[in-house]
Amino acid sequence: MIITLLSDFGLQDSYVTEMKGTILTICSDATIIDITHNVKKFNIKMGAFILASAAPHFPEGTIHVAVVDPGVGTKRRPIIVEAKNRIYVGPDNGLLILSAKNEGLKRVIHVTNKQFFHEKVSKTFHGRDVFAPVAAYLAKGVKSSKFGQEIIDFIKPTFVEPTINREKIRGEILHIDDFGNLITNISQTILDKTKALKRKQLQISIAKKSKILRFSGTYGDVSEGTALILIGSHGFLEIAVSLGSAKKVFNAKLGDAVNVHLS
Amino acid sequence: MIITLLSDFGLQDSYVTEMKGTILTICSDATIIDITHNVKKFNIKMGAFILASAAPHFPEGTIHVAVVDPGVGTKRRPIIVEAKNRIYVGPDNGLLILSAKNEGLKRVIHVTNKQFFHEKVSKTFHGRDVFAPVAAYLAKGVKSSKFGQEIIDFIKPTFVEPTINREKIRGEILHIDDFGNLITNISQTILDKTKALKRKQLQISIAKKSKILRFSGTYGDVSEGTALILIGSHGFLEIAVSLGSAKKVFNAKLGDAVNVHLS
Amino acid sequence: MIITLLSDFGLQDSYVTEMKGTILTICSDATIIDITHNVKKFNIKMGAFILASAAPHFPEGTIHVAVVDPGVGTKRRPIIVEAKNRIYVGPDNGLLILSAKNEGLKRVIHVTNKQFFHEKVSKTFHGRDVFAPVAAYLAKGVKSSKFGQEIIDFIKPTFVEPTINREKIRGEILHIDDFGNLITNISQTILDKTKALKRKQLQISIAKKSKILRFSGTYGDVSEGTALILIGSHGFLEIAVSLGSAKKVFNAKLGDAVNVHLS
Repeated sequence: MIITLLSDFGLQDSYVTEMKGTILTICSDATIIDITHNVKKFNIKMGAFILASAAPHFPEGTIHVAVVDPGVGTKRRPIIVEAKNRIYVGPDNGLLILSAKNEGLKRVIHVTNKQFFHEKVSKTFHGRDVFAPVAAYLAKGVKSSKFGQEIIDFIKPTFVEPTINREKIRGEILHIDDFGNLITNISQTILDKTKALKRKQLQISIAKKSKILRFSGTYGDVSEGTALILIGSHGFLEIAVSLGSAKKVFNAKLGDAVNVHLS
Repeated sequence: MIITLLSDFGLQDSYVTEMKGTILTICSDATIIDITHNVKKFNIKMGAFILASAAPHFPEGTIHVAVVDPGVGTKRRPIIVEAKNRIYVGPDNGLLILSAKNEGLKRVIHVTNKQFFHEKVSKTFHGRDVFAPVAAYLAKGVKSSKFGQEIIDFIKPTFVEPTINREKIRGEILHIDDFGNLITNISQTILDKTKALKRKQLQISIAKKSKILRFSGTYGDVSEGTALILIGSHGFLEIAVSLGSAKKVFNAKLGDAVNVHLS
Repeated sequence: MIITLLSDFGLQDSYVTEMKGTILTICSDATIIDITHNVKKFNIKMGAFILASAAPHFPEGTIHVAVVDPGVGTKRRPIIVEAKNRIYVGPDNGLLILSAKNEGLKRVIHVTNKQFFHEKVSKTFHGRDVFAPVAAYLAKGVKSSKFGQEIIDFIKPTFVEPTINREKIRGEILHIDDFGNLITNISQTILDKTKALKRKQLQISIAKKSKILRFSGTYGDVSEGTALILIGSHGFLEIAVSLGSAKKVFNAKLGDAVNVHLS
């Protein structure tokens, strides 16, 4: 059984590995795969985006544990989210729902049965003391109904949706990857609907800079240092610089407004 | 069989993976788990602390390989440390002993039997040429007595113990985690003994700054940006800032004195 | 079956894990090991060096996937490289050939059979859509001839070879590791042939600095902060500083000329 882990814990401390040891103590034949532990601290939106990007590539039945959890130890609830093909475990703060909805959310369980927790639950590390053991017991075949009651008032993540009028599509930078590519929340579907996808080039404004950028199939289609736009590997409009960093060239940061001019 | 790896090698080079390849060549069904490879270069104390934090969460019989090894290739000895529940492999420089003592140290073997080393042992990379193959043979069931003779003059790590008088507990910052939380060497037991644990707030001095800080159960109990104290997930007094970094707020660094005022 | 992964993707995004999920979906019992994902962006030479350092330590039959791929989605070809003991999968840009040649290159296949690709191949992420599934099918036992035709005009990497005259060996810095050790392209064999290896010390120039450095067996043979030379764990001349960083001391960077004075 595959269990994936995502967090904002970083790779310096023992936190991630304490989760792994806990899982292997309960379920010795689990295959544990890291998604990333370098989510920006407390950035639930970034965690949700990365989880939703990664999960569809895992086999059916995979258990995804995600912990970006500023509310650890407070009243925020631990939950199991059953989706069409996979199961998610983590805090009730919106982190898990984007990915679950993409594949089809079935139900959300509020995890309350302490029988499946670490013997002594710390108030600061539910990754190790709650989420890891719950995932391990799920991997061993315990039904999710054994962990607690279904709830319907779970927290839905609020992602900014692009707005569209005749003149422009107004979106924002959803994620900046390690190459400095700017991934927007403007999907291929939206670009298609507005016929922007058929054009060879688009005028794009990022923060206060405005530039006409050409659509390319891939980064290497243009010469080094040239900015371009493309549909990235997850289906969103992406601004990139060939063999360079769009983040640096546009001096861009997460959440910056991105306008696609249509007129 | 689980083999964990800890080092100060970082994740850029091939060093860590050469250890993994070596282990899998000898023991193909080993499950290899990284603790961390981002221990500060040559910082044995930080390595020992992280190892001691992680090890208790692994199943009995786990083999822990740890390499923070400024003395590689010199006369420092390679050792196997048998503890109550787990086995440790690494250099004789104090790195392994803290964790082994916590669970109950049984005996220390000076590893000398070259039959269990890499065919050709480099003078600069015992992680790959000595510790990895020794761990792999242990995982295959070779008894530790086959590797060499017991020794009793192994190096004990010297950790600063807090000092206590009527006016204050004087400790230091033992570790700063990736969130910027300041983890001290002042244990819950010491705070309990001095009745400091019963108070709602304590006056704490870090380096030259002094502040009255409230005990909280967890980070999210106070508003964003507020400093707090709590007992962390490993049982030590920790200074944190809700949704922020205590490291930055207190301009703190490893080894800084921490005074808890009792009067 | 072991599949290793090397890339310049970094560890922040979901790219690496999407490759892992893809592999496990096709070949559920693959053991996936990371070599590194911190190759400098687009630096094929660094990727080739690290791959060639790591691969020999893996068991025969290991499948090595490497993706440093500035030409993704362009006409550069995906290839399988069969070598004496291992199989390599990645782009035809020189990345795989150094390692394959070291053990004995057998043949190179241009991968064209889309039956073994992701259902829908993106133009920007062949790591996930081409190389990962190809590796997974190889791990399941599909013969490499099923993937496409043999080619002989694959790209050979051009590594600078040291030049030798009576006065000096002129090489360059091939890699700077995470400790700041400067690894040159001057092999033990060359130093042996020129009798430089027999000397106790050598005059070395790096960029514009010239220094007489002593041969040491290992870093700890000299006192803290002292620069030294040694034959590193991969058989190349290495400039190091005991408990310090030669990178900082010599203000060195990748590709800097290194002269070993013989007269």
